[in-house]
Amino acid sequence: MTASAQIGVTGLAVMGRNLARNFARNGFTVALHNRTEARTRELVEQFGHEGDFVPATTAPEFVAALERPRCLVVMVKAGGPTDAVLEEFAELVEPGDVIVDGGNAHFEDTRRREAALRERGIHFVGTGISGGEEGALLGPSIMPGGSAESYEALGPLLERIAARAPDGAPCAAHMGPDGAGHFVKMVHNGIEYADMQLIAEAYDLLRKVAGLTPAEIAEVFRGWNEGRLDSYLIEITAQVLTHTDADTGRPFVDIVADRAEQKGTGRWTVQTALDLGVPVPGIAQAVFARSQSGRTDLREAAASLPGPHPGGDGGAGSTGTARLPEAERARFAEQVEQSLYAAKVISYAQGWDMIRAGSREYGWGIDLSSVAAIWRAGCIIRAAFLDRIRAAFAERPGLPTLLADPEFAGELGRAQGAWRETVATAARHGVPAPGISGALAYYDGLRADRLPAALTQAQRDYFGAHTYQRADREGTFHTRWGGDRGEVRP
Amino acid sequence: MTASAQIGVTGLAVMGRNLARNFARNGFTVALHNRTEARTRELVEQFGHEGDFVPATTAPEFVAALERPRCLVVMVKAGGPTDAVLEEFAELVEPGDVIVDGGNAHFEDTRRREAALRERGIHFVGTGISGGEEGALLGPSIMPGGSAESYEALGPLLERIAARAPDGAPCAAHMGPDGAGHFVKMVHNGIEYADMQLIAEAYDLLRKVAGLTPAEIAEVFRGWNEGRLDSYLIEITAQVLTHTDADTGRPFVDIVADRAEQKGTGRWTVQTALDLGVPVPGIAQAVFARSQSGRTDLREAAASLPGPHPGGDGGAGSTGTARLPEAERARFAEQVEQSLYAAKVISYAQGWDMIRAGSREYGWGIDLSSVAAIWRAGCIIRAAFLDRIRAAFAERPGLPTLLADPEFAGELGRAQGAWRETVATAARHGVPAPGISGALAYYDGLRADRLPAALTQAQRDYFGAHTYQRADREGTFHTRWGGDRGEVRP
Repeated sequence: MTASAQIGVTGLAVMGRNLARNFARNGFTVALHNRTEARTRELVEQFGHEGDFVPATTAPEFVAALERPRCLVVMVKAGGPTDAVLEEFAELVEPGDVIVDGGNAHFEDTRRREAALRERGIHFVGTGISGGEEGALLGPSIMPGGSAESYEALGPLLERIAARAPDGAPCAAHMGPDGAGHFVKMVHNGIEYADMQLIAEAYDLLRKVAGLTPAEIAEVFRGWNEGRLDSYLIEITAQVLTHTDADTGRPFVDIVADRAEQKGTGRWTVQTALDLGVPVPGIAQAVFARSQSGRTDLREAAASLPGPHPGGDGGAGSTGTARLPEAERARFAEQVEQSLYAAKVISYAQGWDMIRAGSREYGWGIDLSSVAAIWRAGCIIRAAFLDRIRAAFAERPGLPTLLADPEFAGELGRAQGAWRETVATAARHGVPAPGISGALAYYDGLRADRLPAALTQAQRDYFGAHTYQRADREGTFHTRWGGDRGEVRP
Repeated sequence: MTASAQIGVTGLAVMGRNLARNFARNGFTVALHNRTEARTRELVEQFGHEGDFVPATTAPEFVAALERPRCLVVMVKAGGPTDAVLEEFAELVEPGDVIVDGGNAHFEDTRRREAALRERGIHFVGTGISGGEEGALLGPSIMPGGSAESYEALGPLLERIAARAPDGAPCAAHMGPDGAGHFVKMVHNGIEYADMQLIAEAYDLLRKVAGLTPAEIAEVFRGWNEGRLDSYLIEITAQVLTHTDADTGRPFVDIVADRAEQKGTGRWTVQTALDLGVPVPGIAQAVFARSQSGRTDLREAAASLPGPHPGGDGGAGSTGTARLPEAERARFAEQVEQSLYAAKVISYAQGWDMIRAGSREYGWGIDLSSVAAIWRAGCIIRAAFLDRIRAAFAERPGLPTLLADPEFAGELGRAQGAWRETVATAARHGVPAPGISGALAYYDGLRADRLPAALTQAQRDYFGAHTYQRADREGTFHTRWGGDRGEVRP
């Protein structure tokens, strides 16, 4: 077999297939391989006309079809299957070749694999790819890690198939060595969890407090999508809320079981943030809200606990028992927009704080502006306001937190009155809003002159002799609580 | 050397030393060993009069001093040092002997070690010990894991040195096989984090909203300590708040740097809960509040963000700019008590939910009532109300959540009005209360008829074809969002 393909894709389930088609549709010759040959054949039969494919039956044939340095993308299940496929191809490729893992691997696994393959002279590129099936085909956001050298070979291909931001820039960039790409993708998903939770709370408040119908709420979201909240998730929220269930004639959102599932990247984000010591309560609340929703046992046991029941049972197409008058509905929707936007900025601030911390911990040198740039299109959290995050970090790469950017700070300042009212309203109406209220606590915690953490630290010294520092001078101190209460320097 | 000791302690830093003294003071003959002999000698010189000690210079001597089956307690640093010491003693003991790890090991390490030693016929007992230095000497709460057989030998000794609950029962009980003891201890610490965070928020609200002085707040806490909040942590809060810094004459709590530190068990609790899929947002908020308090970089950058500044700068002995009139102060304190108590019950409900989940996951068969029983004295979270948790689970071992207990449910019902007002007040006054507000969101989330998780799940189906379930019939469904929006069963 002549080496004629610039790129190869092995693992032709829906994501791999669409990625392969995307390469071909962009003019690359694409070698194809799958453990069971039928899928390879199927792809060529169905989509062969879209470009130049070189189907291979065996792994050695597949590798032989690739121009050097070989670039091959592995699109198989994360975990054991990925390790097995990597082992197989590591035997077949040569030093200088590039193996890409485009699955949702944990960045620690990617670090391990990269180190192992580097010893054999092979470039291993753990790559985050966001955008789902459609993104893979039409242009995803691509977050490759790995060596700078690997990106020289791979970058031009990835940038060709990636989504394009409104300014035409490709949504693919080298994130940093070894696990940087999968780390950034993990945080992307964590932010996505937080975003979705905040949207869910905004919907819930409009439904249960203002008494809007799903169709009316869809209209509100369509309006928001014209403003600073302009984003894919807001857009599809309107789509979902507009949809009517054909079977029952009821709003679709009312017939879906209210148990949100998860696949693990949100959990990984929180676990990693805990290891890094970075506070990401917004992401944590979102993950826990999903797991709480799925706890039918607890929910049934707690269903009769006392409290307000806004919006009737909310189930049988109820539009709420306490519909606000029209003028107040509009005012409330405006208040919720302010709250949703403010809480969203807080989530993103937490996400970027985490990326910076990860980058420092692992020496990745991630460009915080570049992360925002490649999330502007192609990925699930694509949003107009990412361009402003890009600009904020481009202007001040050392910006300690997004909240210190004058423009965002100004918006938060203008939003905070409404935001505080929303938290108060949610509490009084019995509508759970852990995301919106937790974001406000984060905001107020950061800007506090004094935190009651001083009391916590004093307690720790009391019961565990854990010592404390003083606010008025350097040093480490301990009070002899059990004795004369004198202060000593241990 | 004659085998005359019923128990041995190796590792004689402060915890090990106090535990050894505790055994001796309770009439046991205690073999002593330490890597450097000086500590052993020192213990005997200082405390030899307290009981029967058998100091040993070498590890073989130490083991030879123990009656069979030998019970020896390892009190060294968690991690590598523990592994090294275990390896050393595993070579010296015989099948049927019992090695106890009384340090703060991660339960996964304990599982690994238990399995390895079990293969060699040795009983390995990972044991949680709570109560700090003083508890180790005077009576800690003891949470041993390991085989039932090991508890036959060890139980009588542990129950003799443990704290005693008000009803006279010893605060030591067999938690379950392998890692059960260290798991329970980990959750104890997670609950301790949540408890301390809630107390800190209550203090902060009394200070910044009502304008009370630390001394006045101490008085409030002393009052609470006479009621249903009666507990060690409330008691020491009053002690800390009463204390005046000798150097400056200012309230001690005002000169302590407001950065709370942590040693890792809170983090482990949240990470493990995420793996188990158990929502423990109260513990997570507490861990994140600590890490946030330590982020001087972020706090400085965010210090000028707009918002209310209750209680002046809160730093220079300020007692607040907006002191409430006396009658309102008392009413507000009562409202905060209701909120603190309600949020505390929520934290404990989350903790017990997690213990049940861990017990199921690992097949430990943990008695939920027994956990509450042995936390009634000796440990940091000891509290009067633990006896009510004990009773609730003793009466209904299958109680799905503490919140379903009629007595607790009734209290929460009576507290919820005040609790909602506190969340609203905190939001409006700019006082961060992530614990109290997050607990309310958990409460309202569990009792909700419908959660907006339905929207989240619909969005997941929209962008990722993750499918959904319907509320009105069985099955797994997908809507062709990109096509005719028909519903299919994949």
